[in-house]
Amino acid sequence: MKNGVQIGVIGGGSWATALVKIITENNTKVHWYMRSEYAIEHIKKESHNPNYLSSVELHLDLLELTSDINEVAESSDVLIFAIPSAFLYSELEKMTVPIKEQTVFSAIKGIVPETGLIVGEHFHKKHNVPFTNIGVITGPCHAEEVALERLSYLTIACADEDKAENLANVLKNKYIRTKVSDDIIGTEYAAMLKNIYAIAAGIANGLGYGDNFQSVLMSNAIREMKRFIDRIYKMKRNINNSAYLGDLLVTGYSSFSRNRMFGTMIGKGYTVKSAMLEMKMVAEGYYATKSAQALIAKLERKSKTPIINAVHKILYEHKDPKKTFEKLTEKLD
Amino acid sequence: MKNGVQIGVIGGGSWATALVKIITENNTKVHWYMRSEYAIEHIKKESHNPNYLSSVELHLDLLELTSDINEVAESSDVLIFAIPSAFLYSELEKMTVPIKEQTVFSAIKGIVPETGLIVGEHFHKKHNVPFTNIGVITGPCHAEEVALERLSYLTIACADEDKAENLANVLKNKYIRTKVSDDIIGTEYAAMLKNIYAIAAGIANGLGYGDNFQSVLMSNAIREMKRFIDRIYKMKRNINNSAYLGDLLVTGYSSFSRNRMFGTMIGKGYTVKSAMLEMKMVAEGYYATKSAQALIAKLERKSKTPIINAVHKILYEHKDPKKTFEKLTEKLD
Repeated sequence: MKNGVQIGVIGGGSWATALVKIITENNTKVHWYMRSEYAIEHIKKESHNPNYLSSVELHLDLLELTSDINEVAESSDVLIFAIPSAFLYSELEKMTVPIKEQTVFSAIKGIVPETGLIVGEHFHKKHNVPFTNIGVITGPCHAEEVALERLSYLTIACADEDKAENLANVLKNKYIRTKVSDDIIGTEYAAMLKNIYAIAAGIANGLGYGDNFQSVLMSNAIREMKRFIDRIYKMKRNINNSAYLGDLLVTGYSSFSRNRMFGTMIGKGYTVKSAMLEMKMVAEGYYATKSAQALIAKLERKSKTPIINAVHKILYEHKDPKKTFEKLTEKLD
Repeated sequence: MKNGVQIGVIGGGSWATALVKIITENNTKVHWYMRSEYAIEHIKKESHNPNYLSSVELHLDLLELTSDINEVAESSDVLIFAIPSAFLYSELEKMTVPIKEQTVFSAIKGIVPETGLIVGEHFHKKHNVPFTNIGVITGPCHAEEVALERLSYLTIACADEDKAENLANVLKNKYIRTKVSDDIIGTEYAAMLKNIYAIAAGIANGLGYGDNFQSVLMSNAIREMKRFIDRIYKMKRNINNSAYLGDLLVTGYSSFSRNRMFGTMIGKGYTVKSAMLEMKMVAEGYYATKSAQALIAKLERKSKTPIINAVHKILYEHKDPKKTFEKLTEKLD
């Protein structure tokens, strides 16, 4: 980024912590907002986030930590949001500083439950951020592997490719490679849909389906994702690029994925409520399923989305996972 | 299959045993050739293959077992070959009965090392089998999961779709779904190339790359596979169908895959020779790498194939895996 451009990170979780680690790797300063004053004090004293990626040593001299979201919004030219989508709405309610002049990058994989909008649209509609100031940071990237400095690839999407390029230059380092894209809508929907497919993979796993079926499910999922995204916004995109297929695979095949784990519990017979209580975590795909199904219902030209439909039936229509998946298998090929 | 059509299976390994289990599930008789007289005697006495998928109970009343390949060739209208490609040439040398009237399906994932041809071309060129009598059976399908009767999907490809349809009807049962295709060349090359990519996934694993990189590698592999196959034989095909992408994923993500395991050993520092000795098995991808690289060299319009090139460098040009993969990572995105 050009000298003097100020970067802010919103969020104190593992992905936010990983992004802060990445950004500071090349000596770039970060304005870092998190809710927890306790975590801030701990970081200032110990140089480690007490709750997430706690093995990562943070560069204190490059951090401006605050629990006041407005402070970060005011000091930053580029704002990176990395909080669970379920908390975005309430966090943004605290924000009184206008952000329409800033560039806003979403590192959130999901939909804003309160509005049913993907994050970029939410910033546009609710905060008047013009689309040329909105971008997306997407994987495939488990934060845990950033902590281990394992080689990972990020895609930075923005309608204004210069802005994507600038941020990509800040993020790339010896273990991060970057690619820019102008497909903010496609990458955002892909990041949201993959969590639904990861839940489906988990349900299959919990029901006792094996690796052969899992690969058929993923092969059908990427085709379904392409159909879905093309209906929302058609443009030239290769759905097999890392930001779409790679991101689907890292989530769908990972036993660490919260969404896959949530699905596995459902497949094993937990109710939605008990699975959520047990996990003590938000599975983004739970909300994504509802929003995706609502979007499908609104589409003028229908698209076949048997996997999303099946997950919706199980999570929201109290249908039996075993029978629903038996029917689903008839629709896959 | 129409009444009275005789099916022969060539091979005594795990995939051949799985296919025999599948075919006999619906009471279809099988002429079954395997080299080992010991195994034949054991099966006749115990109803189990002593060496492969030994948990599977075989329907003796439906089996005509023989160690004479000509007997099976003579009695069968449809011949399914399921032996490692490295042994095909020597097995076919024993065959004196002409097979150009039969339909020949290959369930072999590889290339005939002696001729550098994919199996279908080999049957065409060396045994005068017309292309309309040649087909391919392809996964994603680990034989071990067939033994467990876990739901799996097979693609049956033949230029003559009636023949594919007929065999599909024999193979489908409560745990096998089938799909027919007319893309024999594409499905055969996909089945061969996926083993090279599985070796690459193994090498990355052995070198310490993580899940983030693995997903980027697979995302690049499917794009490379598409470019490669399109250069060999361009037709309308969706590379994300199960026979291509699904088959790649089940092999690339499986820790049971022989090719992936071979790659992991190479990545960990074993020499090619010691890895092969240690595994006591043929990794199909080893031969496939050589043939694919030779094919690439002959292509008139060049295609970017950085993954195959890197695996070839490591396996055949004595290049250092670590350095070769460092260079490869610069070419992926």
